[in-house]
Parts: sequence; structure tokens; C-alpha cells
Amino acid sequence: MNAPAIEFWFDFGSNYSYISVMRIEQEAAAAGARVVWRPFLLGPVFRALGWSTSPFVLQKEKGDYTWKDMQRQCRKYGLPWQRPSSFPRSAVPPTRIALANAEQPWIGEFCRRVMQLNFVDDRDIDHAGIVQEVLQAMGLPAQALWEQAQSEAWRERLRTQTGMAHQRGIFGAPTFFVGDEMFWGNDRLEDALAYCRALASER
Amino acid sequence: MNAPAIEFWFDFGSNYSYISVMRIEQEAAAAGARVVWRPFLLGPVFRALGWSTSPFVLQKEKGDYTWKDMQRQCRKYGLPWQRPSSFPRSAVPPTRIALANAEQPWIGEFCRRVMQLNFVDDRDIDHAGIVQEVLQAMGLPAQALWEQAQSEAWRERLRTQTGMAHQRGIFGAPTFFVGDEMFWGNDRLEDALAYCRALASER
Repeated sequence: MNAPAIEFWFDFGSNYSYISVMRIEQEAAAAGARVVWRPFLLGPVFRALGWSTSPFVLQKEKGDYTWKDMQRQCRKYGLPWQRPSSFPRSAVPPTRIALANAEQPWIGEFCRRVMQLNFVDDRDIDHAGIVQEVLQAMGLPAQALWEQAQSEAWRERLRTQTGMAHQRGIFGAPTFFVGDEMFWGNDRLEDALAYCRALASER
Repeated sequence: MNAPAIEFWFDFGSNYSYISVMRIEQEAAAAGARVVWRPFLLGPVFRALGWSTSPFVLQKEKGDYTWKDMQRQCRKYGLPWQRPSSFPRSAVPPTRIALANAEQPWIGEFCRRVMQLNFVDDRDIDHAGIVQEVLQAMGLPAQALWEQAQSEAWRERLRTQTGMAHQRGIFGAPTFFVGDEMFWGNDRLEDALAYCRALASER
């Protein structure tokens, strides 16, 4: 029997995605679920919904709250945290790498390292150099992976992936799907995994 | 030593407030915390933020998701649930009663009954009759309580209460305060109570 799958839609610029990226492999393993990594770009989805940027920027009150909440949430989960000096950070090169290598065994480690750069080290993550730095540090063939990921085919796949996010009703990140059931937000990761387990026990 | 207090800001028309109203007395008792009931009107707060109504109405995708989420959340908490045929319901008379009687021992029971009418029985809760029905069913002097609550003094207090919500940075309901620390959403009730306990142990 295949392990039940949890689709994990996330954006490297999204702060609550950061928490889920750091947590998901361990939590999914404990639940006996398989993570399907679905990196996408939240910016075009926001624009399709009529928002020019993150709601945390558009709505000052919610934004102010979010940064306090992030401090507390990271403390709760035992994660390091530094509010990025630029938000939300665009992250096209790392997203291309993550999309082109979503089924590699090192995908989780790659995503955690990129998130750490953004939300702990406060580094710009929107350029090819950062991606090569991460891949090299992981002992991977950085140049070859980068050339593959920036081919026109993968550029087109990223546009398709982001369009699919919008079509499936995604309006924020992280979002989890278990089958057709959608769960929004890091706060719902446990519920999504509980649903995974319930589906598996029905089979 | 006084028990630490959790301020509970809620609106009778707010669906996530429904879940917290049903849960808070039991959870706070388990945490050794005292609930300070702060009913207010979310509508004027939304308008002060530039929104004409609930974000769940303004943003179709988020709204569609919310109703699925409510079904799952209510199942998780063991609460009955029926999506109201009108949303968000205005609830001025019950809010006036709740405000004027926020320190009565029956406040929790009153709020749960009003929430049940809205989110389980799908009844209009924006009129004096419903309030009298609830108060009578609880064996309380309905007419006297209603006359007091609709005095000009309490009307003014409700405007002040709602203005205070906005001034304190509230942008949704439920919102909890423990001292100056703000927690937004039913999902944060446990965190707010954990913070209460931490404060109490520091004293």
C-alpha cells in the first residue's frame, strides 16, 4: 500500500510557509504520510485575487500582529526567527530549483536551507548565486542543476504550477491538500495529517 | 492571588467566535484563568479598516474555504454546526445584553445560547425578541435586563467598547488579550492560556 500523500503548497517568501517547511518532514513521517512538495509563486496568485502584495503589507494591523505572532510561534516550535528586512521576498531562482527537483530526496533539506537564509539570516534569496551557494553546500552539482532549472521548459512549468494553485482555490500559503480536501495555514498541518491517517485507515 | 485574566473579544456574528464562545469557559478553568468577556461589534471595526463587510464575504476564495474549515473544526471540537443562511449576522440586542452583564455568572451560558441560535439553529439574532426568549429560558428577569441594556448609557458604552477594539489593534474576532499581548483567532486560544499560566507562575 502506498503511504497517503500530503500535497504541500508553499512560497519561499511566505513567513508561515517557513514554519511548515521546517516542520513538515518530521510531522509527516510521524503520521506515516508522504510529502509531495509543491513550490509556487504566491505573488501572481495574490494579483489574480486583486491584491497588489501580501495581505500582511496591505493591512497594517494584520501585519503588525503577524510579526508578533511569528515570534511566539517560532518560540513554540523551537525555531530560530529574525524578521526579514524586506518582505515579502521574491524567490524565483530557488522556486525553480525546488520545482525541478521536487521528487529528489534532498528537496526538504534544500527548502529548509533557503527558508533559513530568508527568515533567520535575513539574506536576499532572489538570485542565482544564492541557489548555487546552497546547492554547493549540500554537495550537489550546482551548475548543472541551475542550468536545467532555468530552461524554458521549467519556466513554463512554474507558470503552470502557479496557475494551478489559483485554480484549485489557493489564496495563501502554506496550503495543504489531501486528495481534494484543502487545509490552509501552518495551523492546519496537524489536521491535514490526521485526515491523511483517517483516509489510510479506510483503505 | 488573583487568577490571571484572559480578555475575550468576540462578535455574535463571527463564526470563529462561535467556536471560542463554546470552548473558552472550560479551557480557561482548566488553565486556572479568569475570562473577561468583551463583546463588541466587528462591523464598525471592519469599516474603520476600509472593509465594507467580513473578509469571508469580500474574498470569495477565502469564504468558500471558511465554510469547509468550519465543518471540520466543529467536528474536531465536538460542536454542532449549520452554516447560517445569512452571514455575517448583525446582533446588536444580544451584544448590548452581553456588554451590560459581562460580569454576571450567567454570561457564558447566555453567549453560548445566542451563538447556538445563529450557528446551529440558523435563527435571526438581531432583534429584542430573541434576547428576551433566551433570558426567559434561563429563568432571568428578561424585561428588566432588556430595559437596562437598551438605555442610552449602555448604547454609548457599546460604541466605546467597539472603538476600543479598533484602538487596541483588533482586526478580527475572536481576539484574546493577556495583559497587552494580543492573540488572534480561535486557533490561538491555547497559546493565550499558556501565556496566562506562564505569567501566573512568574508572580
